[in-house]
Amino acid sequence: MTYHIDFQPVGRRGECPAGLSLLECARRLGVDLVNICGGAGTCGRCIVQVLEGTLSPPTPGEGKFLSPEALAEGYRLACRATPLSHCKVRVPPESLTTPQRTQVEGEETSIEPDPPVRSYLVTLAPPSIEDLRPDAERLLDALAEQHGVAATQVELAVLRDISPCLRDSHWQVRAVVREGRNVVALLPPEARPLGLAVDVGTTKVAAYLMDMESGRTLAARGIMNPQIAYGEDVVARMTYASQDPDQARRLQSLVIDALNHTAAEMATEVGVQPSDIVETVIVGNTAIHHLILKLPVTQLARAPYVPAVDAALDLKACELGLHIAPGGTVHLLPNIAGYVGADHVSMLLATGVTQAEGVVLAIDIGTNTEVCLVNHGRLTSLSCASGPAFEGAHIKHGMRAASGAIERVRFVDGRLEYQTIGGTPPVGLCGSGILDVLAQLYQAGIVNRGGRMQLDHPQARETDGEREFVLVEGGRRPAITFTQKDVRELQLAKGAMRTGIQVLLEVNGLVAEDIDQVVIAGAFGTYIDVASAIAIDMLPRLPLERFRQVGNAAGMGAKLALISRSKRAEAQAIAARVDYVELASAPNFMKAFAQSMYLE
Amino acid sequence: MTYHIDFQPVGRRGECPAGLSLLECARRLGVDLVNICGGAGTCGRCIVQVLEGTLSPPTPGEGKFLSPEALAEGYRLACRATPLSHCKVRVPPESLTTPQRTQVEGEETSIEPDPPVRSYLVTLAPPSIEDLRPDAERLLDALAEQHGVAATQVELAVLRDISPCLRDSHWQVRAVVREGRNVVALLPPEARPLGLAVDVGTTKVAAYLMDMESGRTLAARGIMNPQIAYGEDVVARMTYASQDPDQARRLQSLVIDALNHTAAEMATEVGVQPSDIVETVIVGNTAIHHLILKLPVTQLARAPYVPAVDAALDLKACELGLHIAPGGTVHLLPNIAGYVGADHVSMLLATGVTQAEGVVLAIDIGTNTEVCLVNHGRLTSLSCASGPAFEGAHIKHGMRAASGAIERVRFVDGRLEYQTIGGTPPVGLCGSGILDVLAQLYQAGIVNRGGRMQLDHPQARETDGEREFVLVEGGRRPAITFTQKDVRELQLAKGAMRTGIQVLLEVNGLVAEDIDQVVIAGAFGTYIDVASAIAIDMLPRLPLERFRQVGNAAGMGAKLALISRSKRAEAQAIAARVDYVELASAPNFMKAFAQSMYLE
Repeated sequence: MTYHIDFQPVGRRGECPAGLSLLECARRLGVDLVNICGGAGTCGRCIVQVLEGTLSPPTPGEGKFLSPEALAEGYRLACRATPLSHCKVRVPPESLTTPQRTQVEGEETSIEPDPPVRSYLVTLAPPSIEDLRPDAERLLDALAEQHGVAATQVELAVLRDISPCLRDSHWQVRAVVREGRNVVALLPPEARPLGLAVDVGTTKVAAYLMDMESGRTLAARGIMNPQIAYGEDVVARMTYASQDPDQARRLQSLVIDALNHTAAEMATEVGVQPSDIVETVIVGNTAIHHLILKLPVTQLARAPYVPAVDAALDLKACELGLHIAPGGTVHLLPNIAGYVGADHVSMLLATGVTQAEGVVLAIDIGTNTEVCLVNHGRLTSLSCASGPAFEGAHIKHGMRAASGAIERVRFVDGRLEYQTIGGTPPVGLCGSGILDVLAQLYQAGIVNRGGRMQLDHPQARETDGEREFVLVEGGRRPAITFTQKDVRELQLAKGAMRTGIQVLLEVNGLVAEDIDQVVIAGAFGTYIDVASAIAIDMLPRLPLERFRQVGNAAGMGAKLALISRSKRAEAQAIAARVDYVELASAPNFMKAFAQSMYLE
Repeated sequence: MTYHIDFQPVGRRGECPAGLSLLECARRLGVDLVNICGGAGTCGRCIVQVLEGTLSPPTPGEGKFLSPEALAEGYRLACRATPLSHCKVRVPPESLTTPQRTQVEGEETSIEPDPPVRSYLVTLAPPSIEDLRPDAERLLDALAEQHGVAATQVELAVLRDISPCLRDSHWQVRAVVREGRNVVALLPPEARPLGLAVDVGTTKVAAYLMDMESGRTLAARGIMNPQIAYGEDVVARMTYASQDPDQARRLQSLVIDALNHTAAEMATEVGVQPSDIVETVIVGNTAIHHLILKLPVTQLARAPYVPAVDAALDLKACELGLHIAPGGTVHLLPNIAGYVGADHVSMLLATGVTQAEGVVLAIDIGTNTEVCLVNHGRLTSLSCASGPAFEGAHIKHGMRAASGAIERVRFVDGRLEYQTIGGTPPVGLCGSGILDVLAQLYQAGIVNRGGRMQLDHPQARETDGEREFVLVEGGRRPAITFTQKDVRELQLAKGAMRTGIQVLLEVNGLVAEDIDQVVIAGAFGTYIDVASAIAIDMLPRLPLERFRQVGNAAGMGAKLALISRSKRAEAQAIAARVDYVELASAPNFMKAFAQSMYLE
């Protein structure tokens, strides 16, 4: 038996088997509901409102997130509610993993392309009774004769099309040869071999279409990581993947499908074919890397967090299901450890900090924040579980950096003024806004050094036993507040990061003042106000000119590795050079963590 | 709308969409009907009898193959008849591509195994907070430390299972390493790495399960090539594959499915797992090779018959869909030309004739007959289209070498006596029987040197204007006769082969008497009476002791190549040494062909 489920206002509807929760129905219909806990009923984010139809009765757990009034109005947690009839359901914007401001660009480093593939225009003599050479041999002979290229092998995927291809093109093609050995694609004479560089983040994916030979970026796209529908953090996704091979397959194909779609869009935009893409570089954190390759993750999700593999890998496009040239290659940069992945390597590659003199701190802030301290050529890295607070999760009125998110906050004449993304009416607080609020409240004395909120400001109040600061008064919409609990969440998040920095300094026998430069990478890092971050002691108190916000450095590193073999070699050298520090087992960890909770 | 179609006596029934021909219904239900023309209505072999239900009315073309009486009794060509209701259909044995005597064994050559894979028992230390090496690195380190094996890579398919595998096996596994470099499988400690050698013939498939390290054959199986349902010769199949990529895919998956099934059966027989199979060698003629790899065949089916590729190939099992160890390898021996394939190379490898002193003729007789003349170390090969007459096709009462086939014929006291396979009542004539009949009739003067049948024997007669010799009188079953037209078919078939031999001799400046040895390979070659073949001048008139019937030499060659890297290298050297002669463009071809038609 099936029910017709209608999600509004997104307008997705369809038949779903009876017995599925609304969250499962939403997944099935491609409606991406926020669900940090992966559907366990513990994060309270997948709130929907039933407009028509009957659902299973509310569970006791839902009362923690929904008031009796809300329940009476049909609000439910989608993961706890099972349709008992056809249903029409409203999805509030906050419950949608909406399109979001994605950070695609970063500081470009211009390099001389040194690509692993080269293309050659070859003209073949057609076969005849006197010249019966097979098509593959004919092609390899022409490459040798016309270009001095001693390629020895034609990829199976190319062989599968070689005969009609040569005949349809009247025996003139552009042969793409990899590493001087393998023919990986046959293109039309006028086509150029293209490459795809991809940074797959936990939340966002940045993709770049490049000309492999000129090194030029032809198009760029930022999209959401569609795995989000199965958990906002990697632990939830690894748990989901571990439960069932089909679920692991689903997490993989979601990303691959998205990459195929994005590559096709970019190809259309610049008037080329996706099959002109002969090489791809993908970077991501270790969990994402494993999920994309369908590598085992059960052991990666559990202490001591051991990856299946950390070496750089060259795979065939068909092994991943990528719809580029079928004989094309996918290169994955090396990982360093379970929580320090190829995206960290890529960031180090792009920023060039590993070659810096003096002392440089490089930070990629996210749900997991990776930090590398470069100390006169010595590289030490660690990961700190800063949690999803910077993405707006676990914050009462937190949200992603989408339209209507409060992104900047300042006290003006004693009142907190704000600015939203897109200038639209405020919906909630995104990461940079949250950081600003705490910094402003702390500097105004409304939150003290220990994080306790004071009630001596007209916008501060206590509701149901919890202190909160009212940013936007309620009216037709609910009020937007910043609560005592939010302060504590942020203290944990920034504390984890600050602890990581502190441990790295101690391991290197340095103090914060020794740092010559702080490089901040990633979308969140791009938008934060560094002064605010310093104000709450999330970043060390250094002159502002020592900070450099570099945007999506991991994506830039993927681009460099795509078009340059020497950059790939450099990435491997970096991964081998990094000393990984397991934060939890570092000496003084507990002391450093306890201290880092303070706002100064 | 669907109809229920019931095929008897095979007992296969099921629903088929309205509009399909009975042949298509049979394919859909897995009933393999003979259809040499691929369903074009021109070979007249897919005769069935409708017992219940209504069919589309007979087409004019069917009258060529079915008498009005037969049509009145419900006999139809399955490819021309479309069910208009539920139907019950009888399939005569002649119309079934029945299980058949398959030639699996051949002369064994015992060699020292020199396999490309070696296995090593390794014991790993589990990870800990002090030892966070990834699973792959941990394994490679252990191989180096415990066995001095400097493997550098773990196949993606192995990585996809490495973490649960190591943990479930309590950190002790048998690692299979290929060419000292790649880890291609992790087996239980007590398992042995196995290999699969396969000779895929146009009609039959021979498969062998071997221990890669000891070189022992553990099991062997002979099955029919399931592609037969889509055309009995390779030209029909290439045409079918060229029409539609789905059809090409079907021809491939039919063989792969059959190999998977056979491998699983053999594994069960000897108490091992199919996933213990880490290496496979497949040989076949060039068309079969291309169809199995899903390489393009349109150009191969048309003059000048150019293959897509002839080089030896190493593929991954997953690229072909073989259900062996997922990281396992499939090696394909090299082809020589469009109609001289890897099975010819394999035959030359197994028989050792390429190293023979003097002059040796090596022949693999089939629908296409490949012949190699070894002349003091010089190798010259060609292919002659001997046609399917030796398989019983195009012969009025011909059939495959199945139960009830007349396989031996001798004049005893002026009457032709026969012997059938299995000693069962006669159903038709298989290849060796056909050869015997012609030889006996020629030697008795009933067929003259030009092939004309005389009517001065009591068993000879003329029916409907055609002369025929009655082997088995009709009664409840129809008579079994050998017709004037059959003589002509056989003259063409043996003439093609004899021409090939003649051209090779002329190219080498030799005459038949120079031949020191004739090696005859293949199933048909195993069962023929050499004296009969000499009697009709199909084989040169040489002393019988110079002939050697070696059975399935192609299969034996596949086994050698499976367990020995030096044999693979030798196969490549043989393929490179062979001078290919295009028969039709040889000087004197027409004259030789005209002369070879004579029976002496």
